[in-house]
Amino acid sequence: MFRTHTCGELRLEDKNKKVILSGWVQKIRDKGGLIWIDLRDRYGITQLLIEDGRSNSIVIDAVRKLGREYVIQAKGTVIERLSKNPNIPTGNIEIDLSEIQILNSSLTPPFTIEDETDGGEELRMKYRYLDLRRQPLRSNLELRNRLSIETRKYLDSQNFFEIETPYLIKSTPEGARDFVVPSRMNEGQFYALPQSPQTFKQLLMVAGYDRYYQLVKCFRDEDLRADRQPEFTQIDCEMAFVDQDDVLKTFEGMVKHLFKTVKEIELSDFPRMEYSDAMRLYGSDKPDIRFDMKFVELNDVAQNKGFKVFDDAELVVGIVAKECADYTRKQLDKLTEFVRRPQIGAKGLVYVKCNEDGTYKSSVDKFFDQDSLNKWATKTNAKKGDLILVLSGEKDKVRKQLNELRLEMGTQLNLRNPNNFAPLWVVDFPLLEWDEDSERFHAMHHPFTSPKHEDINLLDSNPGDVRANAYDLVINGSEIGGGSIRIHDRDLQKLMFKHLGFSDEEAQEQFGFLLNAFEYGAPPHGGIALGFDRLTALFGGQDSIRDFIAFPKNNSGRDMMIDSPSSIAEDQLDELGLGLIPKD
Amino acid sequence: MFRTHTCGELRLEDKNKKVILSGWVQKIRDKGGLIWIDLRDRYGITQLLIEDGRSNSIVIDAVRKLGREYVIQAKGTVIERLSKNPNIPTGNIEIDLSEIQILNSSLTPPFTIEDETDGGEELRMKYRYLDLRRQPLRSNLELRNRLSIETRKYLDSQNFFEIETPYLIKSTPEGARDFVVPSRMNEGQFYALPQSPQTFKQLLMVAGYDRYYQLVKCFRDEDLRADRQPEFTQIDCEMAFVDQDDVLKTFEGMVKHLFKTVKEIELSDFPRMEYSDAMRLYGSDKPDIRFDMKFVELNDVAQNKGFKVFDDAELVVGIVAKECADYTRKQLDKLTEFVRRPQIGAKGLVYVKCNEDGTYKSSVDKFFDQDSLNKWATKTNAKKGDLILVLSGEKDKVRKQLNELRLEMGTQLNLRNPNNFAPLWVVDFPLLEWDEDSERFHAMHHPFTSPKHEDINLLDSNPGDVRANAYDLVINGSEIGGGSIRIHDRDLQKLMFKHLGFSDEEAQEQFGFLLNAFEYGAPPHGGIALGFDRLTALFGGQDSIRDFIAFPKNNSGRDMMIDSPSSIAEDQLDELGLGLIPKD
Repeated sequence: MFRTHTCGELRLEDKNKKVILSGWVQKIRDKGGLIWIDLRDRYGITQLLIEDGRSNSIVIDAVRKLGREYVIQAKGTVIERLSKNPNIPTGNIEIDLSEIQILNSSLTPPFTIEDETDGGEELRMKYRYLDLRRQPLRSNLELRNRLSIETRKYLDSQNFFEIETPYLIKSTPEGARDFVVPSRMNEGQFYALPQSPQTFKQLLMVAGYDRYYQLVKCFRDEDLRADRQPEFTQIDCEMAFVDQDDVLKTFEGMVKHLFKTVKEIELSDFPRMEYSDAMRLYGSDKPDIRFDMKFVELNDVAQNKGFKVFDDAELVVGIVAKECADYTRKQLDKLTEFVRRPQIGAKGLVYVKCNEDGTYKSSVDKFFDQDSLNKWATKTNAKKGDLILVLSGEKDKVRKQLNELRLEMGTQLNLRNPNNFAPLWVVDFPLLEWDEDSERFHAMHHPFTSPKHEDINLLDSNPGDVRANAYDLVINGSEIGGGSIRIHDRDLQKLMFKHLGFSDEEAQEQFGFLLNAFEYGAPPHGGIALGFDRLTALFGGQDSIRDFIAFPKNNSGRDMMIDSPSSIAEDQLDELGLGLIPKD
Repeated sequence: MFRTHTCGELRLEDKNKKVILSGWVQKIRDKGGLIWIDLRDRYGITQLLIEDGRSNSIVIDAVRKLGREYVIQAKGTVIERLSKNPNIPTGNIEIDLSEIQILNSSLTPPFTIEDETDGGEELRMKYRYLDLRRQPLRSNLELRNRLSIETRKYLDSQNFFEIETPYLIKSTPEGARDFVVPSRMNEGQFYALPQSPQTFKQLLMVAGYDRYYQLVKCFRDEDLRADRQPEFTQIDCEMAFVDQDDVLKTFEGMVKHLFKTVKEIELSDFPRMEYSDAMRLYGSDKPDIRFDMKFVELNDVAQNKGFKVFDDAELVVGIVAKECADYTRKQLDKLTEFVRRPQIGAKGLVYVKCNEDGTYKSSVDKFFDQDSLNKWATKTNAKKGDLILVLSGEKDKVRKQLNELRLEMGTQLNLRNPNNFAPLWVVDFPLLEWDEDSERFHAMHHPFTSPKHEDINLLDSNPGDVRANAYDLVINGSEIGGGSIRIHDRDLQKLMFKHLGFSDEEAQEQFGFLLNAFEYGAPPHGGIALGFDRLTALFGGQDSIRDFIAFPKNNSGRDMMIDSPSSIAEDQLDELGLGLIPKD
């Protein structure tokens, strides 16, 4: 037997027990007469005590040979600590060591195994198995495990079946970013790895499974933006005989269950916001509503006063930063720089300080007198001591810019506490979006998303105005999930394909087996998929998903630890009937 | 709202309730004045009643347009059935239909959606979404879901973390049957899909995760034997600071938990059998111990009596078929044919009938008198009325042959009831097995399997005799799982590689990152992997795994429904830097 207890288990009540622990040497302090060892395992840290004179000299010799991260088995008696450590659950006791066995030695790790390590990103990726020993990463993976358990518990209680869909599926012409998998048994032919189980979950609805879910890996071979992974995990769900409200209620229930069971937070009902309002009031389809600072459109009070920049703008729009009238020139310059950065792209920033004495000081005093500025203040509901920040330009662009500024102000004013959670449903997304490159409309979600019944008649006249039964779950400004009610009616589906510019043949080629399935009694259905990596990071109060994945890849899609992808043997290629043909 | 209740929910207590149901039309019986519809969903079947004169004529007209598998919404009142159906939970009621809405029509399915369908294998694979509507398949997937839920519940209660390991990993030269995945971002380089997460779970032990599990897809690009799939699901587990007994106890506990919670069967403790005994007594490393019929070796009583076949044989071995002395000539000939089939390959079969009158009748009466045969009977413990069946030949071969005969007899005698469950641990597998092709020893499990401590000294002298800390879980003659205690000691690992014929360089090339990880304090560890598809089929009382997988592939690795694998576009290949080079 390697242990009677774990390193997180013993308490003062266990005093005088003979115990055996196994674990890693976290730290050794050798004060000559006394030696302390912090022994670590997944469950915690227990202190071992070795005392010159009292402890066995063989033990003392063995202990002096130990190094950091050695694996040992320690036998001894639980005693009360003289100087207790209130920071750890085992802090009241220590083990009077009577026997020690070195189970394995260790080279000196290339970085410290501490909460705050001295290892750089790349080194830690290469030695991921050592980085994973650090407590913050262990907590992250424990959190991930807990979330998956509770997700399943909830969905099981709601009569969902977890059903595994295949990983070796079929590449579609649209799936330009599919990973493909050559088949040895079917030479010259390829499987594809799923970007999502979308079609399979719809087939399961056709098959009558009623409520499906799956925690499932998905794959996308695309240039990785920061914090994207080529393989990622989704909570993928679908329900039959439901409308949008049923789906929203079910998954709002799930998210509430997760917050309650995992974080002991009781969330109120999630507000629902129309996409158009989200864009108008926050300039984003994923507004962070932990703080207010809504957009106020100022065209009527800001235009036609001779300030050409505003007069030429499609939209003049501002936000109020509470109690920031005392921002210094330097601070304001920094904000201007911020919005002018190429990735934001504003030309400039207009501010109005609402001074405590009732006067206004703005960067456009030349064009706007106190009366005019007072109108701005009234319109934006700015109070004495507040700061109004205004951008102008083309509507869609300026909204995006002001969204960035709003988030920046939220951060500066500490309004974005990662331990506050503000969930939100964004609903009524547009069905179609215009693609400049191909000069045609594309499905904003996918071609099976159903239009709002009352908007179908707009498909011909104003396709861009047609709203979809599509929704996103947004928490703290992050898109956590999204879904839609699907089209189950063949005629409507045909109409959609027509508007998306698919010929019948193209539609059949790409979605044939799903369209065929729909001929045999498809029920009304809809669903949602939640990003499980992102959800876990959110619960962990962090922005980056990478440390919530046991073995992530870097921004080039490489696994630094196993050094993959890599070249493969010539005869392996031969057997697949493949050759490397480098691009010129 | 599409429904107030499901089709499996209503009972006599719900009488007079106004309800709404949605589902598929299973069957319509139109007796002129009365029409009954069986409405089906995942939860059951409810009968709808339409009565000429009483029901609304619009409803009657609509009903007469319905066909099989139409999707409808039905409103009506729960009434008591005149002729009750005790076979279904809703059999006491029916719905007096007041309103009907056709949600979707359906083409006539290419086969009947009944428990016993008229559809052939291929047709059902192509229209899998229709086949999945049949109740037996729905039960199978429901069972699978329940097993996964209970597996996780148990492992969670035992402090295991489910940790996702990557699907895009690295191909190794040994991994000749890896599926490879070209990387667009890293041209000319490939990922591989995991045949198992073996190395990652060992790394998680090095990382201190203590108890890991995962229900995980694994992939193997090999010629598919009957009932193999290119992608399959494992319950993959690993534990640190354990010996073999700890692992066996933990997973015996899991399997007992599954039988108890899912099938309400309380299993006794699983017997453990050494590999050598399994081979000696059953001629198989996965004996079906639902029935006894152990092998009895007969060399001492059967040789040197002038029967050359036996005299030349390395082993003469028999089984006793209870109460089969009355087998006819024809039956015995059939058994002889059975063992002579090429896939079994015995030359002949010797039988001894133990007659009720105390005499013996054998196929080798020429060589063996009653006294001799009486010795056989004594040795095999055959009673009056029993039949002794004897094979002879080279030890390993004849054992395999007799194993097949034993199983056949078990089947003929109805001793292999799929609703009886006889689990068994087979332990002490050989560490190495001789490979005729390469003329060297290979690791029977994998190169990290640890030898029994007491056998290490045999590695040089008798490598084939070295036993491993390796074990299989066998239930009803099926290998459900297997695992081992791993080597965590570098010197022992080096010794193993030497005996497996790996140079240091080769070992480093293939297992480098794992060996490197082992330099930093690897704990003693071991684990197991259970075949989840097989386990589910076993629970479902069936031999084939295919109908316990939602979307399986056929024996050529093809998905008949989506027609995959398939060719991909030229420019997709270009982008990957690949070209098709057909084999000659």
